[in-house]
Amino acid sequence: MIDKIYCAQVKPEMEGQRVKLAGWVYRKREIKDKVFIVLRDSSGIIQTVFKEELSKEAYETAKKTGIESSVIIEGIVKQDKRAPGGVEIQADKIEVIQNVEFFPITKDASPEFLLDVRHLHLRSPKVAAIMKVKATLIQAAREWLLQDGWYEVFPPILVTGAVEGGATLFKLKYFDKTAYLSQSAQLYLEAAIFGLEKVWSLTPSFRAEKSRTRRHLTEFWHLELEAAWMDLWDIMKVEEELVSYMVQRTLERRRSEIEMYRKDLTTLKNTEPPFPRISYDEAIDILQSKGVSIEWGEDMGADEERVLTEEFDRPFFVYGYPKHIKAFYMKEDPSDPRKVLAADMLAPEGYGEIIGGSQREDDYDKLVQRILEEGMDPKDYEWYLDLRKYGSVPHSGFGLGVERIVAWILNLDHVRWATLFPRTPTRLYP
Amino acid sequence: MIDKIYCAQVKPEMEGQRVKLAGWVYRKREIKDKVFIVLRDSSGIIQTVFKEELSKEAYETAKKTGIESSVIIEGIVKQDKRAPGGVEIQADKIEVIQNVEFFPITKDASPEFLLDVRHLHLRSPKVAAIMKVKATLIQAAREWLLQDGWYEVFPPILVTGAVEGGATLFKLKYFDKTAYLSQSAQLYLEAAIFGLEKVWSLTPSFRAEKSRTRRHLTEFWHLELEAAWMDLWDIMKVEEELVSYMVQRTLERRRSEIEMYRKDLTTLKNTEPPFPRISYDEAIDILQSKGVSIEWGEDMGADEERVLTEEFDRPFFVYGYPKHIKAFYMKEDPSDPRKVLAADMLAPEGYGEIIGGSQREDDYDKLVQRILEEGMDPKDYEWYLDLRKYGSVPHSGFGLGVERIVAWILNLDHVRWATLFPRTPTRLYP
Ligand SMILES: [Mg+2]
Ligand SMILES: [Mg+2]
Repeated sequence: MIDKIYCAQVKPEMEGQRVKLAGWVYRKREIKDKVFIVLRDSSGIIQTVFKEELSKEAYETAKKTGIESSVIIEGIVKQDKRAPGGVEIQADKIEVIQNVEFFPITKDASPEFLLDVRHLHLRSPKVAAIMKVKATLIQAAREWLLQDGWYEVFPPILVTGAVEGGATLFKLKYFDKTAYLSQSAQLYLEAAIFGLEKVWSLTPSFRAEKSRTRRHLTEFWHLELEAAWMDLWDIMKVEEELVSYMVQRTLERRRSEIEMYRKDLTTLKNTEPPFPRISYDEAIDILQSKGVSIEWGEDMGADEERVLTEEFDRPFFVYGYPKHIKAFYMKEDPSDPRKVLAADMLAPEGYGEIIGGSQREDDYDKLVQRILEEGMDPKDYEWYLDLRKYGSVPHSGFGLGVERIVAWILNLDHVRWATLFPRTPTRLYP
Repeated sequence: MIDKIYCAQVKPEMEGQRVKLAGWVYRKREIKDKVFIVLRDSSGIIQTVFKEELSKEAYETAKKTGIESSVIIEGIVKQDKRAPGGVEIQADKIEVIQNVEFFPITKDASPEFLLDVRHLHLRSPKVAAIMKVKATLIQAAREWLLQDGWYEVFPPILVTGAVEGGATLFKLKYFDKTAYLSQSAQLYLEAAIFGLEKVWSLTPSFRAEKSRTRRHLTEFWHLELEAAWMDLWDIMKVEEELVSYMVQRTLERRRSEIEMYRKDLTTLKNTEPPFPRISYDEAIDILQSKGVSIEWGEDMGADEERVLTEEFDRPFFVYGYPKHIKAFYMKEDPSDPRKVLAADMLAPEGYGEIIGGSQREDDYDKLVQRILEEGMDPKDYEWYLDLRKYGSVPHSGFGLGVERIVAWILNLDHVRWATLFPRTPTRLYP
């Protein structure tokens, strides 16, 4: 392993020290008898300067080294107020691991081209910043889950039944059987609560949705929680505490990365419990009063949610949705059978739904009836129905779309930028 | 939410306190005028006793309540040396959430039946213990990765090419294209190191292997690391440090769960760096000296590895495998072109391979040649080959089979017990 230090570790107080750095040529310019190479590594960038008088060989090599070449550079740390970070390296040695004559990504590259060469685009510091924010958000979520006593479980991706409707299932041949890719781990998490009570999982989920909106991917990361003995109001508290913890820790730990994408941090700073809660009925009233054409009983899509988010400067809940627009597993509201005990969490600034949650139907007969009403076959849900036969308990849970919360936090124009290699109906490569 | 406490929270020093517990009826027996219910929750079990004189109503209800019924029990903590944990609950209240007349899993259930009703089997404390050990192992891995400066990334599952050979790919229709399920995130992690240098991911991986061995699942959890600037010897150090940290922390935090499965903790305690390292050549010599019929150049399967593990009382490495039995992306050994810079980590006690790792081929021409030698088309690896064109760097990585390390630690007879809902060629349900 190279005994290198990272760009971000070089500090003005290291003046006069000799250091070795390794990375890629991010920027290069020649001014008179000097070659400036801005070196990039995973920590950030640093300016290095090559002068002929210091080392003719290094100077000549630096001159010939192209953008995105991999290099190892050695030199002396020198304070320089004009350099980014207040330091530069007076370099006298450069080893070129691989010289690059022409790097395909240039300043005017279109979004579509950047996605075509996503494997190269990933090295951009702005893309790396997104990935760091995503990793930190998830790490924060795990910290909260650990300290709040939730057990991580690892549910299957290859499944036999739909959770969110058969129309968006990816299907495959599994030896002599047919399998589907999981749309949600929920049903399996429900099975796990009988042993572990409070469980969570982070898995890829799949939706064969043709809809090309800025908030859909065919493959996305799904953070799901499920808990025995909790009702809808309990799980909403879990949601707001978890999301607040994720956002606050990420603000602390990734402030500079976040500021690469958004100047105004108000909504993030506001993300502290309790979040505002409005009923579906109130949401419809608000929308109608703002001239949106929607009737009670209709589902809210991205457009309606966007209008609703104008009313809030932080994430908020909409609860008490009509039964017929929500999934079969949601518990009927005992005080109003037209509704289910469901709540979505919506992110502000136009982003809309980031979490869908509900209390689950724990009554065997009611669940069978709901399956039949949806035109499905209870036979396909036999094991799931068993959970309501052998010591059923009240329970609730939710799923958070990881790329959606990243997109909101970083103010991205599409969730596809929030994942390493996005998958959409037209994009499966690279 | 019920203001309950967990079974494991009830301590002898709470003598005389009134508590509320919620869970499932684990065991029940009637002795004269008493009903004993052992209550189970996610934390463990506790004995509760119902006496007619304390509450006739509660006594009568307890009497009628079946195994695996969901219940809420209230009563007074009482020290009792004969009870498990040294305490029992003198119960005067029981609320039955759902009574179960007959629970399908009985003591003499066969392994196949337990897998058929896996959704119910999961509530067994012995199964919950496996899931807790798995969660703790993974949590420990993340702690080590965070403190050692690795970035978590989220690579895709839907892919266009093979990593480990086309024969074991699951194929599916992806709109108008063909997609495969990822066998390994490796190629995508290799792309990520150009921005983040040291990356890791935890994803499900898929292998359409018909082989029914005790160490194969068609879907398994895969912890993969990839690092720029590291050679094979560097990455082996990472492997032994990571695995040691995982095992030691899990021993500390899940000792009682581990002891449910193994009495002898020697090999776990021995899991400290450095691990023994033997070359493939030495491994062949050992096997031949022990009468195993194997020639230089042949691959080691589960049987050969089992024999080899008899020589070690801790995990160990076998390095320097012949090129033609290993994957196309592994770097040729400059000192012996018949070999690649690859190392597997084998777990002792017969378990064998838990990690496969290598230095990667970073030279464009050599990699193209290897792809051709394997009878594959370089066109299919165009984006991957790009990584060797634009600032290629020496790099190495590895993949750890999560269920395999769990199986070793808990001395399980098959990896299928180490996952929530195992998937094998004949099993896709529940
Ligand atoms: Mg919605
Ligand atoms: Mg092998």
